[in-house]
Amino acid sequence: MSTPLRAIRKGSFCSSASSFRGVGVSMVQGASRGIGLEFVRQLLEREDKGHVVATCRNPNGATGLLELKRKFSERLNILHLDVTNESTIEASALSVRESYGSINLLINASGVLSLPNKLQPETTLNKVRKSSLLHAYEVNAVGPIMVIKHMWPLLKAREGTGDERDFAVVANLSARVGSIGDNRLGGWHSYRSSKTALNQLTKTISLEFARKKDPILCILLHPGTVDTDLSRPFQRNVPQKSCSPRSFLGSKHIDIDDNSDLLDRGSAIQWLAQYIVRM
Amino acid sequence: MSTPLRAIRKGSFCSSASSFRGVGVSMVQGASRGIGLEFVRQLLEREDKGHVVATCRNPNGATGLLELKRKFSERLNILHLDVTNESTIEASALSVRESYGSINLLINASGVLSLPNKLQPETTLNKVRKSSLLHAYEVNAVGPIMVIKHMWPLLKAREGTGDERDFAVVANLSARVGSIGDNRLGGWHSYRSSKTALNQLTKTISLEFARKKDPILCILLHPGTVDTDLSRPFQRNVPQKSCSPRSFLGSKHIDIDDNSDLLDRGSAIQWLAQYIVRM
Ligand SMILES: NC(=O)c1ccc[n+]([C@@H]2O[C@H](COP(=O)([O-])OP(=O)(O)OC[C@H]3O[C@@H](n4cnc5c(N)ncnc54)[C@H](OP(=O)(O)O)[C@@H]3O)[C@@H](O)[C@H]2O)c1
Ligand SMILES: NC(=O)c1ccc[n+]([C@@H]2O[C@H](COP(=O)([O-])OP(=O)(O)OC[C@H]3O[C@@H](n4cnc5c(N)ncnc54)[C@H](OP(=O)(O)O)[C@@H]3O)[C@@H](O)[C@H]2O)c1
Repeated sequence: MSTPLRAIRKGSFCSSASSFRGVGVSMVQGASRGIGLEFVRQLLEREDKGHVVATCRNPNGATGLLELKRKFSERLNILHLDVTNESTIEASALSVRESYGSINLLINASGVLSLPNKLQPETTLNKVRKSSLLHAYEVNAVGPIMVIKHMWPLLKAREGTGDERDFAVVANLSARVGSIGDNRLGGWHSYRSSKTALNQLTKTISLEFARKKDPILCILLHPGTVDTDLSRPFQRNVPQKSCSPRSFLGSKHIDIDDNSDLLDRGSAIQWLAQYIVRM
Repeated sequence: MSTPLRAIRKGSFCSSASSFRGVGVSMVQGASRGIGLEFVRQLLEREDKGHVVATCRNPNGATGLLELKRKFSERLNILHLDVTNESTIEASALSVRESYGSINLLINASGVLSLPNKLQPETTLNKVRKSSLLHAYEVNAVGPIMVIKHMWPLLKAREGTGDERDFAVVANLSARVGSIGDNRLGGWHSYRSSKTALNQLTKTISLEFARKKDPILCILLHPGTVDTDLSRPFQRNVPQKSCSPRSFLGSKHIDIDDNSDLLDRGSAIQWLAQYIVRM
């Protein structure tokens, strides 16, 4: 952990933070498009006070976020964060600390399945390239973990609500294809293995939070097929019908990876589904 | 697949290959030390005809292999292969093709858990570094997969044995800590997630072989704690007693990752344990 962040963990919150007692502050990482953008929209629409930090690679070009900013100018804070560039993660953590002191919910929604000339969902081992395996891993597995590492000192349960929301929540967007047990078709080597690794890393982190009695609930969401830029070129190959990002979030269609025994916290999961939908 | 390898798959074997009908040819990748070296030794000691291709990063410095070479000069072929350098994998595949035409058994034994200044088994998220996550992934997950990709055209069931050995076999050395379900302690983020990804990639490849009816059995071995350079600094932390590489192989202490339904092929696994021990 870098020195400024260690200081946060030990030190007290800065003065601006106190005004956020009792008001939810959420951070959605990977918020320019798709599911991330929809999380931001719903977090802003569903509560009249909560603040949202939306991060993306190119704030000036994030038209969906800029549109929301016009409507919710006081409650939406757009920051620059590229998960492959650790200094942007550290800068976001510092900025969040200065503006809010802490956050209650962190959603890692960034992810990549295909990228021209760099990454294509592989149909056979013959097409698997080292550079694709490494790129998918860097964005889909390493990225969210580095975000959690740097945000950890800021993740706090929401204060003053007087209800059962006594955890901060970290939600990582995984994918069903990341499950080993559920793998019946093969293919998509780079994406698939990066999500499998993300599941293992999330579990590993969650065990540390539990051991240290740090009240942070760490969960994996696999949304099924949601109609976004990521899934659109591949929906023909998928048996299940896709749904819009809005109906994905609205329908409580939130599931947990079957490889993880985070399911043991069943009641907490129910609660999370409500937490996200109601917040 | 590069052009020369595509040619192998389509073309016929070169003349030298015919002399290997009925004689097992095995390749052990990561053979300079530890478990890989012990596989080479036992493959050479347990049969009086089979040939072994042992690959390593530094053939001139691989004293264990050079010692075996003095005793088994005709049957042991030492090649240079670094899993992080794809051209050395391609060169090994070409050399194997020219010398033998095909192989029946491929063991990926290379692996890294710690490396001064580069990789240390992490005890907390605060110590997780992006470069460590990527390095462990490159060596432990990407490496074996690239080896299988380039050796695939050469993997053939052993001919003329007239018994049940009607598969070629690929065995990847995984680790119990790679299992998500079995993860109760956390920590070791980089190594752990790289092995989890290796498990998923092995499953993915194995599904393709099955779909294409290519008779290659792909398995994951997790050896438990074996007394090698890799495990020695960490054995204090491990509840189970370590065993020597020789007794690991001699005792049929071969197990399959519990996250994989390769276990469905139970009888084949039994057979493999014998295959390796008896060969
Ligand atoms: N859609 C589905 O059916 C589906 C199914 C299973 C899982 N998922 C998962 O759900 C998550 C969201 O997917 P989506 O469908 O909403 O995809 P999407 O519409 O393609 O959006 C992907 C988002 O990730 C961001 N991103 C990509 N690389 C990044 C980087 N290096 N740093 C920061 N942000 C980066 C993109 O930002 P830019 O605009 O800058 O590119 C974009 O905001 C992903 O993790 C995905 O794997 C989706
Ligand atoms: N020992 C255990 O208790 C244990 C437990 C679970 C799993 N395993 C797994 O079993 C396998 C063998 O481990 P071990 O205990 O025998 O370890 P080891 O004694 O440390 O040997 C590791 C081997 O991997 C090779 N290697 C490392 N990086 C390489 C690269 N880039 N390219 C090619 N070869 C490379 C090393 O070659 P150099 O000599 O050139 O460094 C060495 O031959 C590993 O995959 C390990 O993860 C071991």
